Amino acid sequence: MDIETRLLEAGIVLPEISPTLAAYLPAVKSGQLLFISGQLPVKEGILAYQGKVGRELNLEEGQAACKLAAVNCLAVLKKHLNNWADLVQVVKLTGYINCEPDFAAQPQVLNGASQLLESVFGARGRHARAAVGVNALPLGAPCEVEMVVEVR
Amino acid sequence: MDIETRLLEAGIVLPEISPTLAAYLPAVKSGQLLFISGQLPVKEGILAYQGKVGRELNLEEGQAACKLAAVNCLAVLKKHLNNWADLVQVVKLTGYINCEPDFAAQPQVLNGASQLLESVFGARGRHARAAVGVNALPLGAPCEVEMVVEVR
Amino acid sequence: MDIETRLLEAGIVLPEISPTLAAYLPAVKSGQLLFISGQLPVKEGILAYQGKVGRELNLEEGQAACKLAAVNCLAVLKKHLNNWADLVQVVKLTGYINCEPDFAAQPQVLNGASQLLESVFGARGRHARAAVGVNALPLGAPCEVEMVVEVR
Repeated sequence: MDIETRLLEAGIVLPEISPTLAAYLPAVKSGQLLFISGQLPVKEGILAYQGKVGRELNLEEGQAACKLAAVNCLAVLKKHLNNWADLVQVVKLTGYINCEPDFAAQPQVLNGASQLLESVFGARGRHARAAVGVNALPLGAPCEVEMVVEVR
Repeated sequence: MDIETRLLEAGIVLPEISPTLAAYLPAVKSGQLLFISGQLPVKEGILAYQGKVGRELNLEEGQAACKLAAVNCLAVLKKHLNNWADLVQVVKLTGYINCEPDFAAQPQVLNGASQLLESVFGARGRHARAAVGVNALPLGAPCEVEMVVEVR
Repeated sequence: MDIETRLLEAGIVLPEISPTLAAYLPAVKSGQLLFISGQLPVKEGILAYQGKVGRELNLEEGQAACKLAAVNCLAVLKKHLNNWADLVQVVKLTGYINCEPDFAAQPQVLNGASQLLESVFGARGRHARAAVGVNALPLGAPCEVEMVVEVR
């Protein structure tokens, strides 16, 4: 499996890691588990999507935002690996979706992140997950995605 | 400890695992930890409870919804065990409660899940926990429950 | 590193552990990971801060609430250690901030917890993190903070 080729074919360029918004680290490893901090749909230092899914953003835009947040997780992940062979398994993904109270399609929105992981990593990208609606997120972002990943 | 007997006595039939709502797995194991995806109060493929606790649902109904979501977690758990002796400890439960901003009894609602775990598993069912209010959940569910479980 | 001295210098007295609000434990250990239950800004048995950050509470009060919730996490942590040398690393912190939909400074609020950890534990206190807005929390608290900590 050549992950770099798959990323290239998917048109994904992993960015430099965004500076954290506060007094914490992009990720911390304990044993074989890497805990990656919640990532926003930020591109080149600015929020690429803003507002609530189902209001300012439609489903497709929400999915694109989740994909971008997941790309930012992968950028953090790559910094903690010698190479992609050190990735054992994406274990758990939590996706917080900024929405109105009557919005109920959080799983479909978060698929933007989940499908990216499967398309890039195959079986190693298939994960457990929770998709949750929230009323507010940092910077007014439409989503925040965090991951737990097993690494060597 | 005969878990199957306790489940039977409690009138609990573990269902077939619900198909996941999207591109993810019901659970992923890493080391001794099994991460179970967020479960909704679904029964036989349909949402058994809908709406916000404290508005459409009263406290007892919210507790019943959390119990049902926890039962769905146990169905996933059982699929990943050879037998119940492989369960070491329920480690962490996160319960998201769909509610209005002035609702403050999330811990009591989530007890529907916590008390089930203790009644079925005894000391091995006693867990760390976070109970959180949210404004929206998948399918308009009143709760979503996820677990981390230590297994052999 | 003398943690007790640092706590003393910071004017922090770790309280007795608050009784849990329901059928769960303050923390559960699995392998080297200690999962600490979500803590509220409770002091001597009563909620020291109440309401939403950005409405009833300003930023500084929200930070103080997060710091207090983190202090309560540390009280739980200490109970699970023989001494502070058994603390390997604060791994992950999740902070739920009770706020209105237009509030976007959750990271700044949660810094009240993160900065405490770094000031007391140094490098061992630097953690991965997710800061999330929610519409409601137990007892009407402005924040809830949970931690995963690697211990010996």
